[in-house]
Amino acid sequence: SAERLRQQLDFLVEIDRLKSVDRQTRIADGRRENTAEHSWHLAMYALVLAEHSNENVDLFHVLALCLVHDIVEIDAGDTFAYDVTANGDKEERERRAAERLFGLLPADQAEYLWRLWEEYEAMETPESRFANAVDRMQPAMLNHVAGEASTWKEHGVTMPQAVKRLSPIGDGSQALWEHTQAIIDEARQRGHIREA
Amino acid sequence: SAERLRQQLDFLVEIDRLKSVDRQTRIADGRRENTAEHSWHLAMYALVLAEHSNENVDLFHVLALCLVHDIVEIDAGDTFAYDVTANGDKEERERRAAERLFGLLPADQAEYLWRLWEEYEAMETPESRFANAVDRMQPAMLNHVAGEASTWKEHGVTMPQAVKRLSPIGDGSQALWEHTQAIIDEARQRGHIREA
Repeated sequence: SAERLRQQLDFLVEIDRLKSVDRQTRIADGRRENTAEHSWHLAMYALVLAEHSNENVDLFHVLALCLVHDIVEIDAGDTFAYDVTANGDKEERERRAAERLFGLLPADQAEYLWRLWEEYEAMETPESRFANAVDRMQPAMLNHVAGEASTWKEHGVTMPQAVKRLSPIGDGSQALWEHTQAIIDEARQRGHIREA
Repeated sequence: SAERLRQQLDFLVEIDRLKSVDRQTRIADGRRENTAEHSWHLAMYALVLAEHSNENVDLFHVLALCLVHDIVEIDAGDTFAYDVTANGDKEERERRAAERLFGLLPADQAEYLWRLWEEYEAMETPESRFANAVDRMQPAMLNHVAGEASTWKEHGVTMPQAVKRLSPIGDGSQALWEHTQAIIDEARQRGHIREA
């Protein structure tokens, strides 16, 4: 119906704002990454690295999780992974955001996107474990390339903090976690990640 | 193998540069859109609007087309849809770009991405027709929202030019083409698109 299409387009116009949500991570040209382009990069990580998933995954479902799960940041903002205080009320802020943003859609689609977001957060399915793995690995790769300009160095991140943040990669992909361990060990040796 | 993973990660690091390719279209906050965030937005259009496709489509395949087909712009740049001169050698520039960029990947994946790009350009499958439809509709929606700041107005686009550019939307989705026609007619009435 015309009303259904209008709701869908209102949602698609609204989520343009994800392009104005900045993350901490810097892209290769030096500026901070925004969440929309991060979501695209993430989906490409999933598409190219799917064979390294520990478990068989429905790749369409992984892509949907990658594309949708950060949309709540339009209202809730990006919460820096290493910011303990901000992470305290992250869940409540994001829940309200999901309600408003997904609520712009027809009810069946609002529920579909809500469930994708909840599934991603719970990490209880093979698809959400693998999406989480690439979501944690992608900024680590950007930090690896950024070197001196990495957010690890900027925020004085320590090895125990990095390992705590990144080790869930192993729940999605043992091969990607092994590679990430090599990256953070190199960052430690270069002084971009502090010992403790 | 370690070599295979290294090739995949080299490719994923390289395509970070798509975030620095600017398009003509402006996002809601006023700056020009880059191609990486456009690709994410496009994939969301496909995910939300799939029911309006004229033909049944494999939605995973549509998403893969949306995510991959603009990667060639890293080397070839974004060619403004209404720039006749630049569109003359677009194909050759993009072919060389596809060769170099997809060539970073293991051979099987290089071929997969190459085929996605060729399929998108040829518009001979239901999936590529629908991906093309949302790829043409998304900037029209941004222009609709931008109003006075639209690239239609900025570049003095005429109704025949807009109709030529946008009418292939109907090959992918009659419903979306009807809605787009209403949008360009409104832009004509507001003086954002010139009569001729």
